Order: sequence, then structure tokens, then C-alpha cells
Amino acid sequence: MTEYTLAQLAERFGLPLIGNGDTVITGVGSLERAQPGQLGFVMHARYAAQLASTRASAVILPPALAPGHDGNGLLADNPHAAFARIAALFEPKPAMPAGIHATAVVEDGAVVDPGASVGPFCTVAAGSRIEAGAVLGGHCVIGPDCVIGAGTHLVARVVLVRNVILGKRVTVHPGAVLGGDGFGLAFDQGAWLKVPHLGGVLIGDDCEIGANTTIDRGALDDTVLEHDVRLDNLIQIAHNVYIGAHTAMAGCVGVAGSARIGRHCLVAGAAGIAGHIEICDHVTITAMSMVSHSIHQPGQYSSGMPVQESRRWRRTVARLRRLDSPRRSADHKDEDA
Amino acid sequence: MTEYTLAQLAERFGLPLIGNGDTVITGVGSLERAQPGQLGFVMHARYAAQLASTRASAVILPPALAPGHDGNGLLADNPHAAFARIAALFEPKPAMPAGIHATAVVEDGAVVDPGASVGPFCTVAAGSRIEAGAVLGGHCVIGPDCVIGAGTHLVARVVLVRNVILGKRVTVHPGAVLGGDGFGLAFDQGAWLKVPHLGGVLIGDDCEIGANTTIDRGALDDTVLEHDVRLDNLIQIAHNVYIGAHTAMAGCVGVAGSARIGRHCLVAGAAGIAGHIEICDHVTITAMSMVSHSIHQPGQYSSGMPVQESRRWRRTVARLRRLDSPRRSADHKDEDA
Amino acid sequence: MTEYTLAQLAERFGLPLIGNGDTVITGVGSLERAQPGQLGFVMHARYAAQLASTRASAVILPPALAPGHDGNGLLADNPHAAFARIAALFEPKPAMPAGIHATAVVEDGAVVDPGASVGPFCTVAAGSRIEAGAVLGGHCVIGPDCVIGAGTHLVARVVLVRNVILGKRVTVHPGAVLGGDGFGLAFDQGAWLKVPHLGGVLIGDDCEIGANTTIDRGALDDTVLEHDVRLDNLIQIAHNVYIGAHTAMAGCVGVAGSARIGRHCLVAGAAGIAGHIEICDHVTITAMSMVSHSIHQPGQYSSGMPVQESRRWRRTVARLRRLDSPRRSADHKDEDA
Repeated sequence: MTEYTLAQLAERFGLPLIGNGDTVITGVGSLERAQPGQLGFVMHARYAAQLASTRASAVILPPALAPGHDGNGLLADNPHAAFARIAALFEPKPAMPAGIHATAVVEDGAVVDPGASVGPFCTVAAGSRIEAGAVLGGHCVIGPDCVIGAGTHLVARVVLVRNVILGKRVTVHPGAVLGGDGFGLAFDQGAWLKVPHLGGVLIGDDCEIGANTTIDRGALDDTVLEHDVRLDNLIQIAHNVYIGAHTAMAGCVGVAGSARIGRHCLVAGAAGIAGHIEICDHVTITAMSMVSHSIHQPGQYSSGMPVQESRRWRRTVARLRRLDSPRRSADHKDEDA
Repeated sequence: MTEYTLAQLAERFGLPLIGNGDTVITGVGSLERAQPGQLGFVMHARYAAQLASTRASAVILPPALAPGHDGNGLLADNPHAAFARIAALFEPKPAMPAGIHATAVVEDGAVVDPGASVGPFCTVAAGSRIEAGAVLGGHCVIGPDCVIGAGTHLVARVVLVRNVILGKRVTVHPGAVLGGDGFGLAFDQGAWLKVPHLGGVLIGDDCEIGANTTIDRGALDDTVLEHDVRLDNLIQIAHNVYIGAHTAMAGCVGVAGSARIGRHCLVAGAAGIAGHIEICDHVTITAMSMVSHSIHQPGQYSSGMPVQESRRWRRTVARLRRLDSPRRSADHKDEDA
Repeated sequence: MTEYTLAQLAERFGLPLIGNGDTVITGVGSLERAQPGQLGFVMHARYAAQLASTRASAVILPPALAPGHDGNGLLADNPHAAFARIAALFEPKPAMPAGIHATAVVEDGAVVDPGASVGPFCTVAAGSRIEAGAVLGGHCVIGPDCVIGAGTHLVARVVLVRNVILGKRVTVHPGAVLGGDGFGLAFDQGAWLKVPHLGGVLIGDDCEIGANTTIDRGALDDTVLEHDVRLDNLIQIAHNVYIGAHTAMAGCVGVAGSARIGRHCLVAGAAGIAGHIEICDHVTITAMSMVSHSIHQPGQYSSGMPVQESRRWRRTVARLRRLDSPRRSADHKDEDA
């Protein structure tokens, strides 16, 4: 069983200690449900009441809350981050042995570093390279001309179709598909003609790609995620999108082709970003919003409509539409009729 | 060929018979397209015209419609349910032999009941247990510390990443990913820091999880679906969500972290539910609606906006925005300018 | 290295040549980033400036722009289509050898044409047929009663659950799930009862199905895509939907059960289409729009709401709701209060 004294944690993470340093910590928990032996954390004064009632043996808290806390604790300016670092000590990490599982199919012309781990039923095509410390869980399909950087982790069942370069320490969750054909069509002679996709996908260091998320190859140039981009589950990133470093997107977001998104942006769940537009750095898009034009000013943008009782909502829609009717306009002598 | 007389069906399902009990039923069909030998059903008086013209050999119908029907039939208060039960007799169910397919990889320390079926290319990690009568179609990946309850069916290519407990008679469709890391990040020292996810996923008995749906593990506590929760395809359930029994969600819904949804709720397609809110029992959310605040009253809620001709819609949007402009407010002497 | 002279390309594709026919073309590129040796294209006069500055060795352009271009070129009425055809010459196409990979599991009673290619870890169930020239990349799961037509390409990790008929020259991208159970439920005796799905999925010739897209089986009749239907990634097509020829849908679209969509329709990203409605031919739906009623007139329809600064958007929402309040109505003597 993993355990540390509070003093050991204080020293390891450089956090000031309050209370009894001999307190033994055997795990982490939420303040509300923590058991004795567990370490919790609190970010804001508004949760201070939980501090009094928690059964946690110690709490990570901001210095400002320390005077009101008479239990054990560690002080941190960013308690959430400190908690994340400490919690990682208690996370079970199944060891993946280096080497290629007996069932995996590695083509001649593929290079797998002896320090990489390739799980059961993986396939690695000629022309691809798996670097040291990379881990491929079961059922990954690595097409031609891919690179999987050092320390990168494909959890399981990840497909890299072709020409996908993953940096170092990237995490890709199950079901993600990277490097598929972009959705490029030309209409000609009464039917669709598929536009070949000769570009690739470039993923920077420390990115994370969620489960069942899809990132298409570029048509001619590449689809690019700079470093430390974080994508949740079920996100669609179309061909030739460019996403700046440290940008994070929540689940179900869709980004259309050739959109260019800045650094340090936050895109909340199920928002949509149109193709061929630009969003500057430090933009936040709230949930279910539609970005159909470029954004050149940092800030927060929205168009998600909160629910009302359906009966009222139907009336709201009816009146909204009437705003546009000539009669209504006339009634109000609206100059823009 | 599967066949029953109408009298046999009447007796088996306890449904009053009208017409000729010797009628042979060899399948089921819609009233509109049924062939002779098939059994159809009708729910509402408004489809009574189809009753007259159908070629179906017999029809399941509510007692109120019986006087107007001079063909063969079975009477049921809930014809759709009766139809579902009878149709199941005609559904081809490929028998999955008990046992572990020769190509599957079951680690030492995994427990597979001799009455379970593990299909080709499945992997089962140490610490996981497959109970009697469970069926894993091909290509399932079962990570550590999972339980697959008796009679549960993973159709094919399902991933349980880690610490996922499935109850009895659960159905999970292909491509679903359960137990992936939640999307938890702390921003620290100029970059994202991943928050470990030590919780699991608990799925109650008789739940159904659609194709390519994703359900993340909880951060500290579990993500929970009570019994008989029904999820369609391409749904995202974030970490620490709690969904009450008998709630059903249609395709493309997204539920953000720590949302708590009651029992007997219905969530229509592509609706979004914000994190850290509560929805009480017996709430219906219509399609493409955004629930950004808690709902404490049962009822139906909406914010999905129906399409107009684009030209008109653009005018509607322009006027809607003008509602917010100072000039317009002044024109109308609007007190809330 | 693949290379052609401009004259060879002109002859092969029947395009008038301008400039030096001996120019050697070794690849394709965007005007902006093309290198010497590459062929670019331009569609519109508004990109004519790029024509002057490009480093591309030749350009495909519409005849109207020829007078202003003093470099090498090929003339085409539809330069994008001509470009697509020529680019295909330079697309790497890993040869998939005919035959069944040693690791694949093909059940007795499945028929695989000797001219088809079945990749590693595929499974093909009894009762299914793979026709000549079809290519199954790795990890495909083909359930019972499926047909994969001549020249059809399952890129990798495609699941056909059951009773799925794919026409000729269809492309299906990784992670797609076709033929899963529709989401059909009857509520009975306090719980959900699953409605069996006895229909199938019919996909016409030359269709394309994106990564992680899901298409469910019909309940009694089939779910149908006519020929040349193009679906992007992460799309949900529910049971018994019918989609006409040449219709294209961008990523994240959801189509509910039994919707009937015409030919030559375009559905932009993340739009939603309700169940049991009809959309006629030649309808365009813009991004994030909700189609909740049938559309009987060709044209373009919208309800996607573009973002504003959040502060302004909140005011817009507040005023929109006030439109519906009795007080406001009274103030304006609104006759429909």
C-alpha cells in the first residue's frame, strides 16, 4: 500500500506544513467523502465549512485559509495543482513491459525502440517509428509514415491512419482516430469527387486527445496542434485546423476545416467553430456557442441559449420571429423594416 | 423458420385474441410494408386507416380500436411493448459459445466464468472478472479492476479502461469507451497539469450504452448510472456525472462533469447539460437545448431554435441583437436600458 | 518518385495547356506554400494575387484567369475537380495484397473473394460476403449477413454489426459503426423494454462514411443511404433514416429516427434533424441549425446563433425573454399577450 507521512509530502513538493507531520497519508479524496488517512484539498473560502466537517486526515489549502483550519494541512498557492501532483503518487499505473507483445504485427521497415512497449494486437506499418518509452496499449493501428514520440501513451485502440507525428509525452485515449482523410469534395459532372489528402497531422509535446475524438489529415499542408493542447472526448478537428499551445476544448466540440485558433483559448462543450476563420489568443467560448466569424479581441464569447419551460420557450420563439415580420415592424414604425 | 400461431402468441404473452387463432405468424413488420404472414401493431386511432389497408396477417392493437378491426389481432394496453416482446422471438440471435476464443488474451489474475463467452482478439487484464452468461464480442479491451456482470453483452470492440463495474444484463454497443480519464486539468506555472482520476464507473443493471459513446471515470468518487439508464450513440458523459434510474438520452447528448440527473428523465438528441448542476426526476429536455442551471420542477424544457429560411433568420438575428442596443432601447423608452 | 510533365497531365486529363509543356511536376501544393516542381490551383479571381507570387511550377486555373497569368498552367472549368484528379496521382496508396491476413478470423460460411484483401485481426462472420477488390484494413469486425461490395474500402477498425449491405467503391473510415441496434424503447411496467431491430443498413455505391460515425439498423425496414452520399466524422444516423443520393453532411451532425432527407442536400456541421420529418431535394442546412419540421422548398435554412461577447449575449438573452413577459407585452399593447 502506498503511504507517505505529511512531512514527506511537504518536503517532496516544497509545501509548508501545518499540524502534525507524522500524519500518515494513504490516499486522496474529496473533502466531502474523504476517509481517515486521506488527503483532501480546498480552493476557495466558500468551501471553508467543509474544512470543519471533513474526515480527511489532512487538507491542502491556500495560505489565506490556514488561520481558520486547526487540523493538519499543506499550504499551496494553487491547491488544485498541488493536489494533482500528490494524487499522482496514489494512481495505479499498470506497468507496461518494454517490448513487442507476441500478438502484435510490426511490418518490416517499422522501427520500434527497444524501450517502447507495443501491446497486444497492435499493428505498426512500414515507415513508422515508435520512440523510447512510448507505450501502445492493445489494439492500436499505426499506419505508414507515423512517429510516436518518447514517453507518449496511446491508451488502447488508437488509430493513426497515415502521416501522423506525435510529440513527446502525448496521451491519446481509446477510440481516437488521427490522420484520417479530410472531408474534401469537389462537385463535378453531377457527383462528388474525393479530394486527395496529402498532408499530415502534427501533434506537439504534452498534448492530450480524448476518447473517440477525430483529427483529420490536412489536404496539402498539415493539421497542427502546438504543444500542451488538451482535447476532451468526441471532438472533431477537421483538415488543416491549427490550434495554438495551451488551448483546451471540452467534449463534443467541432472545428471546421482550416480554422486557426490561438494559444491559451478555452472552448467549452459542444461549441462549434467555423472553417477558415481565426480566433486570437486568450479567447474563451462558452458551451454550445457558434463561432462563425473571426475573433480578434481576447475575451469571453457566447451564443448558447439556456432552456426555459417548453411552453414559454415556444412563445419566446414565436415573438422572436415576429420581430422580423413586416406587420410587427410597421406597428413599431421600425426604420429597418 | 421461426413460426407461431396467433393463438400460441396470445397464450404466451397473455393477450386477448380476436379473429382466427390458427393464423400462422412467421415474422413482424410495419403496417405499411408488412407481408402476409407478418404481425404488425398500431398504437393510435390516427393510424386506423392503415389497419384497413395492411397486408399483415394480424395486428396488435389497443382494445379501443378492436371494434373497427375485422381482421385477426391481439389486444394489448401497450401495443408497442407487446410488439417488442413478440418481435424478440423473430430476432436472429447468433449463439455465442461459452468459453474463451483461441485468439483472446486473458491475463493471469483475470477471472472468466466458464459460462461466459469471450470473443476473438479480446484482452482481459488481471484483476477483472467476467461473470456467468456475459458475452464479449470480438475486439473488447477490458482493463484492470473491472467487473462484467452476469448476462451483460458487449457487442464488439468495447473498451473498459479501468475500474468499470457493469451490472447484470447491460448492453454496450461497439466503439463505446468506459472508464477513460476524466478531463481534469489544473493550470499551473504556464501549462496544464493533468489531474489523476482515481474514481471509477458504476453502471447499474439493465443499462444500455450506445455505439461510440464515452463515459469517463470519476476523479475521486465514481461516475454512476443507476439501473435501466438508456444511452444512445455518440453521447459524452463526463467524470462524476450521476444519472438516475430509467433516464434515457438520445444521440449526441453531452453531459459535463459532476452533473446530477434524476430518474425518469428524457434528454433528446444533441442537448447539452452543464457541469455541477442538478436536474430533478421526471424532466424532459427537448432536442439541442442547453441546460446551464439546475432544474427543480418536473416538466419539459427547451431552448432549441427551429430553422427559418436563412435570409429571414439573418434578419431575425440582426433584430434580436438590436434589442440590446442603447438606441433601440431609447426609442422604446425601455426601462431596462 | 512520381513525376509527370505538364504536357502529359494536359493530355491525360484533357486540359488545355499554357506555357511550357516540358515542365516537370513532382507533386501538388497550395499556391501559398507550393515548392518548385509542384502544381497548384486557383478557383477565383480574388486569389489572382497569389498567382503572381506563387513558387508553384504550374497552376490549374479557369480560362477567365488565363490572360493574367504568364506562367505555366492547365485550364479547367472546375479547377478544384481537375486538381483533385491530378492530386490523386501523387497520393501514396499502400498496396494491400489480395488475400486474408494470417491473423484474421474468417468463419465457415463467410465468402471472401480471392481478389479481396482482409487485413490483420479482422473477423468475418458466417453469412457475410466480401467481393472482389474490396479492402478491409486491420481490425474490422464484420458481423453476420453483411455484404461488402467490389472495390469498397474499410480503412481500419470498422464494425458492421449485422445485416449491413455496402455497395461498390464505398469508403468507410476508422471507428465507424454500422448496423448497431437502433435506439428503440417501449416504456412498460415501470421500466424500459428494448425493441428488437430486425431491419438492416443499405449503403449505395460511392458513399463515404467518416471516422467514428454511427449508422443504426432499421427497426423493421432498413436504414438507407442512396449512392454518392458523403458523411463526415462523428455523425449519428438513427434507425430508418433515408438519405438521398449526392447529399453531404459535415461533422457532428445528428439525424433522428425515420427522417427522410432528399437528394443533393448539404448539411453543415453539428446541425440536427428531427425524427419522422421530410426534407426535400436541394436543401442546405447551415451549421448548428435545428430542423424540427419538414422542409418542402429547396433553399438554405438556418438557426445557428453567432457568438457575441458574453456580457452582451447575456443581455440579449435577458431581453429576448422579456419579450415573452406579460408586463412587457402590456407596455407595448401587444395583441398576442
